[in-house]
Amino acid sequence: MAAPVDFLTYVDDHQDQFIQRLATAVEIPSVSGEPARRPDVVRMAKYLEEQLQAYGVETKQVDLGTHVMDGQTLPLPPAILGRIGNDKAKKTVLIYGHFDVQPAELSDGWSWPPFTLTRDEKTGRLYGRGSSDDKGPVLGWVNVLEAHHQLQKPLPVNLRFCFEGMEESGSEGLDDLILEEVKKGKESWFDGVDCVCISDNYWLNTRTPALTYGLRGISYYKVNIAGPARDLHSGVFGRMVHEPMTDLITLLSKLVDPQGNILVPGVDEMVPAADEEEKKLYTALDYSIEDVELSAGGKIALSDDKASVLMGRMRSPSLSLHGIEGAFYGAGAKTVIPAKVAGKFSIRLVPPQTPENVDPLVISYLETEFKKLGSKNTFSIENLHGGKPWVEDHKHWSYEAARRATEAIYKQTPDYTREGGSIPVTLTFAEALGVNVLLLPMGRGDDGAHSTNEKLDISNYIEGTKLLGTYLYEVAAGTKA
Amino acid sequence: MAAPVDFLTYVDDHQDQFIQRLATAVEIPSVSGEPARRPDVVRMAKYLEEQLQAYGVETKQVDLGTHVMDGQTLPLPPAILGRIGNDKAKKTVLIYGHFDVQPAELSDGWSWPPFTLTRDEKTGRLYGRGSSDDKGPVLGWVNVLEAHHQLQKPLPVNLRFCFEGMEESGSEGLDDLILEEVKKGKESWFDGVDCVCISDNYWLNTRTPALTYGLRGISYYKVNIAGPARDLHSGVFGRMVHEPMTDLITLLSKLVDPQGNILVPGVDEMVPAADEEEKKLYTALDYSIEDVELSAGGKIALSDDKASVLMGRMRSPSLSLHGIEGAFYGAGAKTVIPAKVAGKFSIRLVPPQTPENVDPLVISYLETEFKKLGSKNTFSIENLHGGKPWVEDHKHWSYEAARRATEAIYKQTPDYTREGGSIPVTLTFAEALGVNVLLLPMGRGDDGAHSTNEKLDISNYIEGTKLLGTYLYEVAAGTKA
Ligand SMILES: [Zn+2]
Ligand SMILES: [Zn+2]
Ligand SMILES: [Zn+2]
Ligand SMILES: [Zn+2]
Repeated sequence: MAAPVDFLTYVDDHQDQFIQRLATAVEIPSVSGEPARRPDVVRMAKYLEEQLQAYGVETKQVDLGTHVMDGQTLPLPPAILGRIGNDKAKKTVLIYGHFDVQPAELSDGWSWPPFTLTRDEKTGRLYGRGSSDDKGPVLGWVNVLEAHHQLQKPLPVNLRFCFEGMEESGSEGLDDLILEEVKKGKESWFDGVDCVCISDNYWLNTRTPALTYGLRGISYYKVNIAGPARDLHSGVFGRMVHEPMTDLITLLSKLVDPQGNILVPGVDEMVPAADEEEKKLYTALDYSIEDVELSAGGKIALSDDKASVLMGRMRSPSLSLHGIEGAFYGAGAKTVIPAKVAGKFSIRLVPPQTPENVDPLVISYLETEFKKLGSKNTFSIENLHGGKPWVEDHKHWSYEAARRATEAIYKQTPDYTREGGSIPVTLTFAEALGVNVLLLPMGRGDDGAHSTNEKLDISNYIEGTKLLGTYLYEVAAGTKA
Repeated sequence: MAAPVDFLTYVDDHQDQFIQRLATAVEIPSVSGEPARRPDVVRMAKYLEEQLQAYGVETKQVDLGTHVMDGQTLPLPPAILGRIGNDKAKKTVLIYGHFDVQPAELSDGWSWPPFTLTRDEKTGRLYGRGSSDDKGPVLGWVNVLEAHHQLQKPLPVNLRFCFEGMEESGSEGLDDLILEEVKKGKESWFDGVDCVCISDNYWLNTRTPALTYGLRGISYYKVNIAGPARDLHSGVFGRMVHEPMTDLITLLSKLVDPQGNILVPGVDEMVPAADEEEKKLYTALDYSIEDVELSAGGKIALSDDKASVLMGRMRSPSLSLHGIEGAFYGAGAKTVIPAKVAGKFSIRLVPPQTPENVDPLVISYLETEFKKLGSKNTFSIENLHGGKPWVEDHKHWSYEAARRATEAIYKQTPDYTREGGSIPVTLTFAEALGVNVLLLPMGRGDDGAHSTNEKLDISNYIEGTKLLGTYLYEVAAGTKA
């Protein structure tokens, strides 16, 4: 069942209004990882809830309690549950998205203020933090609701919504909410859900829409080395004391090599090598080494072989060194011996890896390596957050509906991809609801989520809104599993 | 010739006023390494010049031209030359000091605002950036001038002053000034100088005054690794591309080991090992492992052997890793692959090392090691600043005068020390003027120059002012070499 023409026309006719909606959302700097911006996350929750209510969705703010961040106890931003439609004859689709964003400062190297949506007419792009991750997709659903509300058309399915404001900071509190809600049975806001649809990832490239059936997990670590009571002058103390930075850099250098191989014994080894048949799946994708180098903005691919680069992202673990807290980070030449430094790194996980089976390997390896240093500084390691990887059945009717919707809107067969990033809630929904979860991306592979100059192409926002709506019609038409 | 009692009494009677003078100076955040604070350095120059003029010193601001910092062309702060006294029968002492300071932010971990002088009555300490390095000592000289001016006493020697505002940023422009000034012969502000006295270092411990006859040099490096055009999401790009942080951390780990050994081939090897006789010099100093651990605030000495720890600071090179520019440095868990990172490290040099003979070793070693990584990222290395090491004749009459002055004020024989830090101008004065240079420290080994909570003990400031004045009387009494 194709989407009705009046819906598609409405979307085309209201582009500027939809872009204005996204602009309003981007202006709320809902950075969940910065305690000072917590009130903005709450403000964003309220804005989103009002939008849902305006188009007939019944909503509920769920208090998720408090958590500790940077030594402060902070209230978590509320999650928002929503529901519209209760027709037993229709399928029920649960939509997930997040309204918090990654940190961003103009000084990080943005070409425009990150919390202003900047429209570039020449390229047809909308720049701003959260434009693609994940405010654009979330508001895509609001656009679909608006269109049906204004056209006084009933939706083809019953919809349930679960939107959170802590995704970029480990989705604190959300798993508990989902598990609690599921327990309520008939009273649950998730009662009767037939499938879940999440729009929080990206096409593999800039040309071909994708359906995503796998995600890597993550385990994020902080390695702390401390020694002196305060920062020291390197002239006065250099070669008299054990320097925390020397210890930390030595440890961090033992985690990953420049070819991306993980040096923590047992981690790479947990994942069986791909056989020839599996390799063909990756060879079939619409992708080239040029694609990765264009989207990265540098000729830095780890290999010249497309399948091996794609497998690196989709079916291999990866270890990235993100930075150091406590060391000198400014411009210029400061001759300091930092007293207390913390290295941040994370490992992206693939089946059968989980934080539970990888963390002990990482922790005991670093403990052992630290002992080998013979340093009098102190060592500790923290796991800041973690999430299991996930792989889904991509022959399910929900995936079939998404394929047909993609073909209708984009006139292309989608790439079936596994993503390198982590959306831990995917797995929670899959396990707690026992239903199929579909990842239906709106943005392109070069959107730069989590980076400077994050963007969403106007065409992806508008066609993506049509895609989300059409997917609902195709679900309604499909065979219930 | 002991200092006259009325001078000493004047100093005792004007302690609060002298502390207020230091408080005024600390409130001017004259950070030479931060372009935005350049006007404060200029303001500090003006304040110091007015103080000198108030007590009868003829002054001259010398324009040092411009330089480039962080890509900006900036005017250098002026140097201040001063002279008072022109009696052929008296010796002429040239005083050097600097009125710029290291960067400091409350958020670095200071217990009090760094640019407010905080007086702690319980410990008798004055906390604030520049209190000990180098505003306290510079104002010690102003205090001596004030006392003589107010008491209408002639100074026992002719004095010349050379104060700069770029010491913490490589003393840009100062060498040229000194060399130009020396060339002027009879017209030179340095004409007739018999010796140089610099008060810009520290006692070895917290008990025993010191005279310092050696300094390490320095060479400060910035290693740049760049790859993608912008920061990347580690989920999307992890194990697809060469990550600049991985390359940088690998390179930095090859520079120094946790025991302080420099791994750059040829650098440690340039310095001959100490023989038994030289080791005895270090064994004789009033120092213990507890001293270093107390001043560092942690039990982190590289050895249990006092002489070997002291030699590490005084007669060995050291390599410190200061930090990384461009990586994630905040709190929390950001999953970024930084696009462009720069590692900062420096090597403290001892004879026969110089930046000229060490830089090529470091640069070619890192170039070679980078090639070994097999990375497609780009590598470059910059030398941000450098200075040669210096060792002086400590039997000279100026050192003898300082020894007698120390014995008069502190009732102790000073430690004869070599310092781990760098004051490159020391060597320029020694070479350009061809006279003896004395380092006469005011502060203690635990002052925390360049660190958080930098402090100067009130007793060191006040007795130190007496010491500087008494030194001038002892110079006047000594035998001209
Ligand atoms: Zn997201
Ligand atoms: Zn995200
Ligand atoms: Zn200094
Ligand atoms: Zn200094």
